Amino acid sequence: MTDVRARALPGLPEIARGADLAELIVAAAESSGQPLDDTAVVAIAHKAVSKAEGAVVALSEVTAGDEAKALASRLGKPDPRVVQVVLDECVEVVRAERGVIIGRTRHGFICANAGVDTSNAAHRDELVLLPRDPDGSARQLRRRLHELTGVRPAVVISDSFGRAWRHGQVDIAVGCAGLVPLQDWRGRQDSVGLELQATMIAAADSAAAMADLARAKDSREPVVMVYGLGSHISEDDGPGAAALLRATSEDLFR
Amino acid sequence: MTDVRARALPGLPEIARGADLAELIVAAAESSGQPLDDTAVVAIAHKAVSKAEGAVVALSEVTAGDEAKALASRLGKPDPRVVQVVLDECVEVVRAERGVIIGRTRHGFICANAGVDTSNAAHRDELVLLPRDPDGSARQLRRRLHELTGVRPAVVISDSFGRAWRHGQVDIAVGCAGLVPLQDWRGRQDSVGLELQATMIAAADSAAAMADLARAKDSREPVVMVYGLGSHISEDDGPGAAALLRATSEDLFR
Repeated sequence: MTDVRARALPGLPEIARGADLAELIVAAAESSGQPLDDTAVVAIAHKAVSKAEGAVVALSEVTAGDEAKALASRLGKPDPRVVQVVLDECVEVVRAERGVIIGRTRHGFICANAGVDTSNAAHRDELVLLPRDPDGSARQLRRRLHELTGVRPAVVISDSFGRAWRHGQVDIAVGCAGLVPLQDWRGRQDSVGLELQATMIAAADSAAAMADLARAKDSREPVVMVYGLGSHISEDDGPGAAALLRATSEDLFR
Repeated sequence: MTDVRARALPGLPEIARGADLAELIVAAAESSGQPLDDTAVVAIAHKAVSKAEGAVVALSEVTAGDEAKALASRLGKPDPRVVQVVLDECVEVVRAERGVIIGRTRHGFICANAGVDTSNAAHRDELVLLPRDPDGSARQLRRRLHELTGVRPAVVISDSFGRAWRHGQVDIAVGCAGLVPLQDWRGRQDSVGLELQATMIAAADSAAAMADLARAKDSREPVVMVYGLGSHISEDDGPGAAALLRATSEDLFR
């Protein structure tokens, strides 16, 4: 019987470029009395990571090209520069209809606006992108947390994604380290000796979704501490959230 | 700052047809000391609900028709009767490729095998379907919990769904009562006065995903108690998980 729980970490400042996220997290965890240990998961909204890494674009420095202008006009988007930034993040535009651009990013995510996000940006001019290498960012954050504390909590970096056939967004893992992204139950037997079917559990995505429930969307709480997921945590960093990506060759919905 | 937590409810028996789920849940909650109150969410795997409601099919009573036989042969499925049951649950076969049938159910869910599930079935012969009316089942369970206890916890009925572009499955809400399925933040402003973008939060799906993390897949723990989601709970039952379904006319990926 596992008790899983999540609580947002209060007291983090606005994240500036170059910020040492691990240092900020350690300080906030200490002041709020939320333990960092080998069984904890640090769930962090990608925007904080992107800002620290400088994965942001100043709209005032963007010039929209012809493709972006045409697409903005066709989709009724008011600012073609935003469309340009989205196109720059796409290796493929999967759909561009009904005011929505669904892009495949260089990481392999298929999502609205190729992960470009303007909400909660520090300045009206600023667009926040996905981190360049979210699994690398997660590993780096975990390494730094270990340096500072001697313990090795797992790290998951999340973003809010829509779904093809469901309204609303849920947080999913765009990067992780030390959190087993997929629990593989294939071939194991259930309690009456039958082989289990629903057997690849995207635990890292569930952890991201859970963390989001502990976070108020209108407050600056990029970090949520999640406890009770010890069985999903590994000492090594593991394959990261990249293991959650379905290969293009297996995509039934392109 | 919200602390959200989830714990599986131990001590539930195998669910038989006609079982009074509410009675079993109240007894198990009492023995395990997990409170049922107006701020709790009872998260229950659909299989328990389907079994109680008799939404199961005995394979031995199924005769595969020509379409099922042809599809089973094309997809390399060993038992055409299973394909027949899946087809019977589909109002539309959305994809049938690579050994996978993605169906749209009469409820409007788009998912593998139209929600037909053989894992954790009590007998090798038995296929568990989705409940006929999962929102209705959730409302009924909530009503009965209220009758028995005088309190009104929210109810979410979950299933494990795959995703078009990601490996692995996460639990989502197929039915709910008293849990606000979608939190609508559109038009609200973020902490620097910008209008929020990622603003329709599928809280019921996140709650289902969270509950699944507290459940061991190979044990019989269909019910998980979730606490700390008071801000997502309403006294009235609300629109249910049907509100999470994207209309076919808005589907970009058919």
